[in-house]
Amino acid sequence: MKIEQYFEQIGQQARAASRHMARATRGDKDRALAAIATAMKQQRDSILAANAKDMAAGKASGLDAALLDRLELTVGRFDDMIEGLEQVAALADPVGEISNLKYRPSGIQIGHMRVPLGVIGIIYESRPNVTIDAAALCLKSGNAAILRGGSEAIHSNRAIAACISEGLIAAGLPGTAVQVIDTTDRAAVGELISRPEYVDVIVPRGGKGLIERISRDARVPVIKHLDGNCHVYIDDQADFDKAMAIAINAKTHRYGTCNTMETLLVAAAIADKILPPLAAVYAEKGVELRGCPASRALVAGMKEASEQDWHEEYLAPILAVKIVAGLDAAMDHIAQYSSAHTESIVTENWTRARRFLAEVDSSSVMVNASTRFADGFEYGLGAEIGISTDKIHARGPVGLEGLTSQKWVVLGDGHVRG
Amino acid sequence: MKIEQYFEQIGQQARAASRHMARATRGDKDRALAAIATAMKQQRDSILAANAKDMAAGKASGLDAALLDRLELTVGRFDDMIEGLEQVAALADPVGEISNLKYRPSGIQIGHMRVPLGVIGIIYESRPNVTIDAAALCLKSGNAAILRGGSEAIHSNRAIAACISEGLIAAGLPGTAVQVIDTTDRAAVGELISRPEYVDVIVPRGGKGLIERISRDARVPVIKHLDGNCHVYIDDQADFDKAMAIAINAKTHRYGTCNTMETLLVAAAIADKILPPLAAVYAEKGVELRGCPASRALVAGMKEASEQDWHEEYLAPILAVKIVAGLDAAMDHIAQYSSAHTESIVTENWTRARRFLAEVDSSSVMVNASTRFADGFEYGLGAEIGISTDKIHARGPVGLEGLTSQKWVVLGDGHVRG
Repeated sequence: MKIEQYFEQIGQQARAASRHMARATRGDKDRALAAIATAMKQQRDSILAANAKDMAAGKASGLDAALLDRLELTVGRFDDMIEGLEQVAALADPVGEISNLKYRPSGIQIGHMRVPLGVIGIIYESRPNVTIDAAALCLKSGNAAILRGGSEAIHSNRAIAACISEGLIAAGLPGTAVQVIDTTDRAAVGELISRPEYVDVIVPRGGKGLIERISRDARVPVIKHLDGNCHVYIDDQADFDKAMAIAINAKTHRYGTCNTMETLLVAAAIADKILPPLAAVYAEKGVELRGCPASRALVAGMKEASEQDWHEEYLAPILAVKIVAGLDAAMDHIAQYSSAHTESIVTENWTRARRFLAEVDSSSVMVNASTRFADGFEYGLGAEIGISTDKIHARGPVGLEGLTSQKWVVLGDGHVRG
Repeated sequence: MKIEQYFEQIGQQARAASRHMARATRGDKDRALAAIATAMKQQRDSILAANAKDMAAGKASGLDAALLDRLELTVGRFDDMIEGLEQVAALADPVGEISNLKYRPSGIQIGHMRVPLGVIGIIYESRPNVTIDAAALCLKSGNAAILRGGSEAIHSNRAIAACISEGLIAAGLPGTAVQVIDTTDRAAVGELISRPEYVDVIVPRGGKGLIERISRDARVPVIKHLDGNCHVYIDDQADFDKAMAIAINAKTHRYGTCNTMETLLVAAAIADKILPPLAAVYAEKGVELRGCPASRALVAGMKEASEQDWHEEYLAPILAVKIVAGLDAAMDHIAQYSSAHTESIVTENWTRARRFLAEVDSSSVMVNASTRFADGFEYGLGAEIGISTDKIHARGPVGLEGLTSQKWVVLGDGHVRG
């Protein structure tokens, strides 16, 4: 079958299933999640065997160690998938919530009702656990999903997809509500992102190159995450201990995450007090510092930052450091270089905290907290389909609510417009 | 100056102004709206003279009567623009509203803050009043705007733009917060829709052809309105008088609006009671009916509907009529043919009303009310920048809130992630 025909069938099935899913009750959806977990447990051995096949093929084709690590389904990761299903089942159902229902002078009542988006397309790379996480979130939010995993994970994804369909059907929902594209043909991605009649939104997960390519070519709206070039600004009215704790946690808690601090901004009036002890901790932890001339004057051996460093999302034990005159200069730097992901100010000054919160235009803006908190679990979303760096629809961690939107409902009693 | 350079300058100015606008207080913004109104009143004669110039050029170049009508600034329309400014000033400021601020187990407080989108690009055709309406909504919602009106309205738009800048400056806001693209070069649209570094969202207003073209070519998110193929379904448990009133109002109150009913669905069990008297009223009002075979059997002289009629947005005194078995068939028809703009059910049956509200996936879903209510003013938005038929971000009438989104705010006291 040609890829267009294949996708036509997938698309029609998804669109039809999405109508079913939109009216599924919370009970239906939670039962499906439980049934998927049951099927996964029963098929544990065959899923792990399928994954072993992908691992062997990956090794044979020379996949690098990082990719192989992401591909591998260990017993621990398998259990995490099951636990993820249970967590999503425990979340409140966002669908159908009516808010702000008000009478208008005409006598009609007007309100907002939360509704699924329809069909969500997810494009991701090697991790097979995304298959189950994404399926669970789309299902619970009343959407149908079309999942396109990496070709290196095809056997794992196929085995997991069989469990998902089995669980959906066991709960009386359409087995096609979650479909995994079962071909490694790259043209399938082209179809998925260019058919608004079948797909309402695309969530790409993966490297920046993949996401930029998809955004450029898509004819369907994309909820995307590009860089996480996050900043912490230590104000001259910062509490010393809080500033130390936050600057260390934001950089060194984990290096490879998108909410890790990549540039530290320090107010000039406090720099000589805080930068040297901070630099000592970073040195101890093996973090390389790249600074502006003023920072280098305070810390022996600090490398020189180039213009490019201010743009960089290192995802590594490297930190750019800049001394700024104060709040305005810090916010100017952020406006110029930040990827609008997450920024934090450390200050005891009420007015500056309020200004930072109001004026910094990033998806998460923090006062006296580590950027590492920018995460769906920490925010109480229960789970996240991704972190959006877009400005429309959803910003920051995207959970169930980000997979819905609101329609208007109008209640009348024979009302007509005069 | 080349168009790329020209737009580069416009874009940089808009981006810089957007940071100012984001932190402007409600007082600043309302003062600017008032100052714009004052400037407009003072420049009334020169604006009307500029419009006369456009009208003369339009007549000379053979613009059709409908376009000339939209282009003309009568004294009444001029006063409406002034009134519009006052209405927008009276609206609440959506910016900065913090909602759902909650403590998390980690001790951080997490909430949502409503923030401007940044820079809004508006592309529209002949009506010069859009210049002032769009400017007012963008300004009040804390955004900068780049407006691209039709070349036929360039003198009118230029004169209005001068008043807008004057008012902004008088209120201490950047005069470049609202810029009108002052060239008739069509390449300017290409720049506007393809520079995400300068423009955060595009709102095109105009014919379907324009909007489809812009959506296809845009590299910036688009909030768009395509068709308004709206349906009314008269259930067999409808109240006769309400059904008559709504079906007549939804079709005949105005023919050229996007919330006008274009297809009437009637439950078979009530069709012989309601269709003949309805058809008599439509005939009296000059509405042409195009029906399914069952409808035609009940109403003498009704034309036959083709498959194309079910897709049609007539914007004219024509109505497609179909008899359906009941609620499920009506919702199937809507799912297949509707443009997902506005649909209404007329019924006294509680369960069917609830199902229609929950299951019909349109931007406005109504019970016992005329589709003509789907409008920003009727919904209490005060004004609308347009009506979205998209599924993400904003559905239906888009007012100030639709020109904003929500970022996360995190408040801590030195909190770090463990």
